[in-house]
Amino acid sequence: MGGSVKSRDSNEVEFSRIVAFSDGVFAIAITLLVLNLSIPEGLPSGEVAGALWAEREPLLAFGISFAVVGRFWVLHHRFFGSLNGFDDRLIRLNLLYLAFIVLIPFSSQVLGAYVDETSALVTYSANIAAVVLVGMVMTGFAERSGLLATSPAQRRLERLRAGYVAAVFLASIPLAFLLPGLTPLFWFALVLDPGRKLSSAWGSDPQTGHSG
Amino acid sequence: MGGSVKSRDSNEVEFSRIVAFSDGVFAIAITLLVLNLSIPEGLPSGEVAGALWAEREPLLAFGISFAVVGRFWVLHHRFFGSLNGFDDRLIRLNLLYLAFIVLIPFSSQVLGAYVDETSALVTYSANIAAVVLVGMVMTGFAERSGLLATSPAQRRLERLRAGYVAAVFLASIPLAFLLPGLTPLFWFALVLDPGRKLSSAWGSDPQTGHSG
Amino acid sequence: MGGSVKSRDSNEVEFSRIVAFSDGVFAIAITLLVLNLSIPEGLPSGEVAGALWAEREPLLAFGISFAVVGRFWVLHHRFFGSLNGFDDRLIRLNLLYLAFIVLIPFSSQVLGAYVDETSALVTYSANIAAVVLVGMVMTGFAERSGLLATSPAQRRLERLRAGYVAAVFLASIPLAFLLPGLTPLFWFALVLDPGRKLSSAWGSDPQTGHSG
Amino acid sequence: MGGSVKSRDSNEVEFSRIVAFSDGVFAIAITLLVLNLSIPEGLPSGEVAGALWAEREPLLAFGISFAVVGRFWVLHHRFFGSLNGFDDRLIRLNLLYLAFIVLIPFSSQVLGAYVDETSALVTYSANIAAVVLVGMVMTGFAERSGLLATSPAQRRLERLRAGYVAAVFLASIPLAFLLPGLTPLFWFALVLDPGRKLSSAWGSDPQTGHSG
Repeated sequence: MGGSVKSRDSNEVEFSRIVAFSDGVFAIAITLLVLNLSIPEGLPSGEVAGALWAEREPLLAFGISFAVVGRFWVLHHRFFGSLNGFDDRLIRLNLLYLAFIVLIPFSSQVLGAYVDETSALVTYSANIAAVVLVGMVMTGFAERSGLLATSPAQRRLERLRAGYVAAVFLASIPLAFLLPGLTPLFWFALVLDPGRKLSSAWGSDPQTGHSG
Repeated sequence: MGGSVKSRDSNEVEFSRIVAFSDGVFAIAITLLVLNLSIPEGLPSGEVAGALWAEREPLLAFGISFAVVGRFWVLHHRFFGSLNGFDDRLIRLNLLYLAFIVLIPFSSQVLGAYVDETSALVTYSANIAAVVLVGMVMTGFAERSGLLATSPAQRRLERLRAGYVAAVFLASIPLAFLLPGLTPLFWFALVLDPGRKLSSAWGSDPQTGHSG
Repeated sequence: MGGSVKSRDSNEVEFSRIVAFSDGVFAIAITLLVLNLSIPEGLPSGEVAGALWAEREPLLAFGISFAVVGRFWVLHHRFFGSLNGFDDRLIRLNLLYLAFIVLIPFSSQVLGAYVDETSALVTYSANIAAVVLVGMVMTGFAERSGLLATSPAQRRLERLRAGYVAAVFLASIPLAFLLPGLTPLFWFALVLDPGRKLSSAWGSDPQTGHSG
Repeated sequence: MGGSVKSRDSNEVEFSRIVAFSDGVFAIAITLLVLNLSIPEGLPSGEVAGALWAEREPLLAFGISFAVVGRFWVLHHRFFGSLNGFDDRLIRLNLLYLAFIVLIPFSSQVLGAYVDETSALVTYSANIAAVVLVGMVMTGFAERSGLLATSPAQRRLERLRAGYVAAVFLASIPLAFLLPGLTPLFWFALVLDPGRKLSSAWGSDPQTGHSG
């Protein structure tokens, strides 16, 4: 099937190259966010401060997106750290995942330019939800294929956390139709971590947890 | 001749640097594709959704090009994984190969802006065909110079697959003159894998296959 | 709290990936500075030299920013070289640090376009000061958490140097209101190194110094 | 002086990070060249082919610059491969070198837009000559500081080759005033390699040559 599993140990070079490529894409995508900020050239002296002030919404979008992409990078990082093998389908799923990461600078431009428009908020939320959903498919696939070295309890925790992020962004899509002005505020629900409580309820470090 | 062959084992650092540079170029080129997507700023509220909808063809071009560059990266990855040495000419051929990879964001902008124009379709197809052809020249050169560690059967398979991709894009050039609207659909022929059948007909894994 | 310290030695792969990601962001941010330079296309023959001459202020901003980002990279480089462990909070502080690095191409565009405008100078100074301040918070955090392998004398020296850079840029903010034309000249105070004298007064190499 | 020499062997991690950062800057700069190519959106059907044809000079500049940056990468690569140590001044010289590499996408935009304008040709030639000259200063510095592991004969050969490239671009500056149309053709003199003859006259591989 062209999908034979390669163990990580005996394919360390190839595995590192996939990780390095993914990291490169993350680093470039997060840095390209700055290109959504710029002020017009050749303004008369009195209008420069105003032009800078007009960048506050793009700057807000920059801040949100930097935090979001940074968070995804940490999660991707942790996911690849817990793999003990890979195959062609995982590489393809990873590329699909990265495609939605690469779209974030565009969605962020849309958000920064039209932060109170329903269609802009839906675009942004759909992009982020797509990243999380492809990430869940990728994790589920790795789990079913026996490529993950983590414990079942830890996987449940990761799934819960990812599902929560997807739920917040998916729930914000109808909200963007009803109350567009409140949608970015609603995203602050991401600060809550539903896994934290469970993690301590188990009385064990999720990295090594073996309860449930 | 300045072209003395260096074995991979005793030049691991230099070899890794060439691979890392190539991976960097791939990662940047694939991420720059997003710069072809953007919407005008300062639109009145009622026109934002329309401006987003107008991005569907650039978004289609983004999707096609992301898949194409991702596929080339996997192939390049596999090619360099099977090398057991390199020389100056291979480095130069690799740079030429990367030059056509770097052009893809431009061809993709052209395609996204004019998806039903013959000249845009020809530009895109010619760019992709050039990547494949330089890749075949590079593989053929490595093979003749004894730099490849793979078996003859596997090489034949890789050549068949690369030739098929080149053929699809070259065949789409005349098609772009006759039926421009159908050309992107024709590219779906890429989903077929002429190597798959042979690969299983040989009853062996192509990585180690020794039939033919 | 999910913030358990990981030693560098037993997490070399994860540690390297954080360093490589940071280096990638630095390399991309420093290279994106060039996008602030461009000349209009289609000018009549007699106006090209003038258009190039008009780029001298953006070019000055490019030079300043390249030196500044390059300097921050060297410092970041040295900081990570002296860590013997990391935890989640350090990763988050590092992302915050990188966010302000990524903003520099924007601040540099503003500076290059309006080099004698108070608001542009304040924007640039605030961006640079933010990098230094987050860097000091990150270093202080690493120190208190016992993650730093350097001696107290060396840490004091690094703190003095970083504090000096922050002081120069913070002091230039009021100056930008009074004498905007002199502000970029004032930045040349950065050429002075208040640590150099102390470093030699201690009669020891700061890397290993144990005086103070 | 803060400039104590560090041997490469006992600082492999730090050394690799400098090389990786430089490679990243090269990879990004070479890929950003594509941003100088783009066609206007929304043209009527009959004008697309013409707009693509109008990109032939930017495309020529892309090709020249890709070859030039690729060549510099190979040389930088070889230079760092021959170092057996580094110090702070070398890091600073390397940053200055990279600053001129990063400017190439700008100079290339200027060249592509005004390929027959004296001022554009001078800008491009000056940029390239600056890279070569800083490279020669860096090599000379490394040589005097005993950081180079290569033989005197090889260094002479490298100097000759670098000097030849600088001479071609410096000589093209007055030529750009007299015969701007011929200047890009004159650059084809770069195809000649004055070192090739000497290299074979010595009857030895320059890598290990000990004649002279």
